[in-house]
Amino acid sequence: MPISPRHVLPFVALAALVRAAAPVGASDDPADRYREVAGRILGRALVDEGAWTRLEHLTTRIGHRLSGSAGLEKAVAWAQEGMKADGLEGVRLQPAKVPRWVRGREWARILSPLARELPILGLGLSVGTPGEGIAAPVVVVRSFEELNALGRERVEGRIVAFAPDWEGYGRTVRYRSAGASAAAKLGAAAVLVRSATARSIASPHTGMLSYESGVPKIPAAAITVEDSEWLRWMAAAGEAVTVSLSMEARLEGEADSANVIAEIRGREKPDEVVVMGGHIDSWDVGQGAHDDGCACMAAWEALTILKDLGLRPRRTLRVALWTSEENSGNGGRAYREALGDDVSSHVAAIEMDGGCERPVGFGFSVAAPGAGAPSRRAGRPAEPEDPSARAALATLRRIGALFEGIDATAVQWGGGGADISPLTRDGVPGLSLDTAGEHYFDWHHTRGDTIDKIDPANLRRATGMLAVMGYVLADLPERLVPAIPARR
Amino acid sequence: MPISPRHVLPFVALAALVRAAAPVGASDDPADRYREVAGRILGRALVDEGAWTRLEHLTTRIGHRLSGSAGLEKAVAWAQEGMKADGLEGVRLQPAKVPRWVRGREWARILSPLARELPILGLGLSVGTPGEGIAAPVVVVRSFEELNALGRERVEGRIVAFAPDWEGYGRTVRYRSAGASAAAKLGAAAVLVRSATARSIASPHTGMLSYESGVPKIPAAAITVEDSEWLRWMAAAGEAVTVSLSMEARLEGEADSANVIAEIRGREKPDEVVVMGGHIDSWDVGQGAHDDGCACMAAWEALTILKDLGLRPRRTLRVALWTSEENSGNGGRAYREALGDDVSSHVAAIEMDGGCERPVGFGFSVAAPGAGAPSRRAGRPAEPEDPSARAALATLRRIGALFEGIDATAVQWGGGGADISPLTRDGVPGLSLDTAGEHYFDWHHTRGDTIDKIDPANLRRATGMLAVMGYVLADLPERLVPAIPARR
Repeated sequence: MPISPRHVLPFVALAALVRAAAPVGASDDPADRYREVAGRILGRALVDEGAWTRLEHLTTRIGHRLSGSAGLEKAVAWAQEGMKADGLEGVRLQPAKVPRWVRGREWARILSPLARELPILGLGLSVGTPGEGIAAPVVVVRSFEELNALGRERVEGRIVAFAPDWEGYGRTVRYRSAGASAAAKLGAAAVLVRSATARSIASPHTGMLSYESGVPKIPAAAITVEDSEWLRWMAAAGEAVTVSLSMEARLEGEADSANVIAEIRGREKPDEVVVMGGHIDSWDVGQGAHDDGCACMAAWEALTILKDLGLRPRRTLRVALWTSEENSGNGGRAYREALGDDVSSHVAAIEMDGGCERPVGFGFSVAAPGAGAPSRRAGRPAEPEDPSARAALATLRRIGALFEGIDATAVQWGGGGADISPLTRDGVPGLSLDTAGEHYFDWHHTRGDTIDKIDPANLRRATGMLAVMGYVLADLPERLVPAIPARR
Repeated sequence: MPISPRHVLPFVALAALVRAAAPVGASDDPADRYREVAGRILGRALVDEGAWTRLEHLTTRIGHRLSGSAGLEKAVAWAQEGMKADGLEGVRLQPAKVPRWVRGREWARILSPLARELPILGLGLSVGTPGEGIAAPVVVVRSFEELNALGRERVEGRIVAFAPDWEGYGRTVRYRSAGASAAAKLGAAAVLVRSATARSIASPHTGMLSYESGVPKIPAAAITVEDSEWLRWMAAAGEAVTVSLSMEARLEGEADSANVIAEIRGREKPDEVVVMGGHIDSWDVGQGAHDDGCACMAAWEALTILKDLGLRPRRTLRVALWTSEENSGNGGRAYREALGDDVSSHVAAIEMDGGCERPVGFGFSVAAPGAGAPSRRAGRPAEPEDPSARAALATLRRIGALFEGIDATAVQWGGGGADISPLTRDGVPGLSLDTAGEHYFDWHHTRGDTIDKIDPANLRRATGMLAVMGYVLADLPERLVPAIPARR
């Protein structure tokens, strides 16, 4: 899950579109209306074996699934086949071009003041080093401000190490995203970046960088928290550090990939859609279990459970396993582009992309068109003032009450996801499945993102919650928020 | 810290040596007797900066300290010099021969059913592979019983992967220690062993193996918990796994090293000694911060604090920074051998070798001569029946009461350490500093055993506890237990 660190506006008043926020009466109460069916769905999900069995296959048999890799396309084909076998409707592949970035071999060593290995993990989309590698003095900075204060003469030709404090994922990840170009503007030869995590066992975390256009592209690799701290110690001691870095990383053009889609078509309004899912691609280390295989298997199984229970909601409930979230976002974009002007067909979009720790509820945002993807990662925003958004939030909280039995009733303002951001930025209400989030960023984008970190009971809970929320949103008599105008 | 998994006898009645276990009267109560001085010592330790400053130097400037490496000898010389600069008495090096085991380059790959890297860390003292490496099918076993049930025809020429359940360090580490020879007896080409830890972020843990004499030596490497679990999945699925393993590991004879010793000589009985310390060597990854640099700095600083406070106990209080605990135990043995018949000179031995999480108290054992080193790692044993041991435990608990202000009063039966085991097995009472022990084995013997995992406040607490316990045991009017007979 790449998370944009930018500050996002969670809500801009849709004044022209406001519907009356009627007080929720007993007969309108979604908790009352859907209590019985939610029990059937949740009960089935809580003893479900399918999602786990498939997650085992995806993670241990197919393995990681980087854009452009055989693993990703194997997963795509396997999912399509499995969805068909489950008897789901509208099973299809939605083509998307994805980058073929290849890590190649990579290594680094501290040359002085003491010689030792330096564990790294090249950042996604990084260029490689020249064949002979780069050996250069290291300049340690804790912030962009410190970097810029150094100026070109103290940066040029050197390796810049970003060793910031841990200020949470959203702030610390800025150095991964933007560090390379910031350093390249001052003539740096390469950058090393503290992994965006609080806890580490010498574990480097990869993730996508963004090169600014017009700025030279220089190699960038994540270092461990431990080595980031060590570099700060060396800097404090005035001890010069020299590092040798070798990376074969390269972008090999584009590859063909696809979103995997399946549906239960709506019984009354088949052209109105609730879409839910996660991304089927992953980084090229670990197994992409928490990020984001679990979500794909949960959403798929949620649909299969509904189908097996013979439940067909008023609107179409669609599952999308988006491709290439990690290093391009092209799957989510291809999904949006395929809609053309028809984004108003989408009643809601639900993304699960925060791992599969114990679910606690859902996050929710609805943004004015063009306002950017709502996100909670920059901090939980204040609740909305707009009556339409407040009414939707109240409705979702009544639906959330159905999860009392699994302690997951929290519905908070602020939600979304990278794959659904092309939808939500055009006004589609966006939800994210929220979890306790205690250790997700320990494993995120590391070799340690593996299925052994997932409790099957949490996968069952998530499956049930997606099934209930997806079903109810697709079945509500009224749309969660009024239709937004057609736009392209 | 290598921990022997063997079951140890915590106490064998010293019937011939029993002194009357008198009820502790008010005037004899060590808590009363030493309350005031303990306050002075603890107060000083709790604001101490010396141990932390030195630990920074040891871990970040000198780095890891494998037996036979320049780093270890740099640390030995630096400690000796520093102890002299502190004005400690009897500062000296006690020579010990240590193995010069060199890891060299090492790597492994899964060749099938899916091709990917396999993070490894060769085990200490392992032999290397032939130059071209070893590529072979993997046989996955969860126990020695499973291995032996397979028989030679299903093991010969293969790589045996020990993928046991986690049953705590003491039991799980058996596969690291004894796995190579167990597999070699059936003709295995190499072994891969689950790292002895509960929690992992794809972190392999090294540690010493023991080759059985007369059995072919085969290469052995630790794999991560994640890959151990993955191999079990593959075995359960009946999926054949092939691995390619390359290790340059080799034993390059012996090197000269030394224990570093310093003292405050006893004011009344200088020939009676309380020795305390940890081991100055470490594995060749990480910084050996928890294991066991912290203990060396704490014990050294404890002595310096006592000296600075002008406190000279009745008996000699000695600090020993033992060498080569990790892959030979030669430092502890050299210390014992230098005593000759004079082990009875040792009133008590205190080892800190469980990391520097929050201290909770001390463990204590006293063993009959030759009974083996007492240890708590095989589970906390029942309290002793012998009156002498019970009296000593009661005395220690009264001393422990002095640590009420730092919540570290627990004195439990069962204690010791690898470096002091040559003393304790000959009857010297052995103590270990006990900690909360929540994460020690997450970091132990990994690249993640670094100073950033240590809270300076815990190092200060440990320093104060060693200083108080060392001082009081060296100053008590009577020995903690009666003198044991001279033995060689």
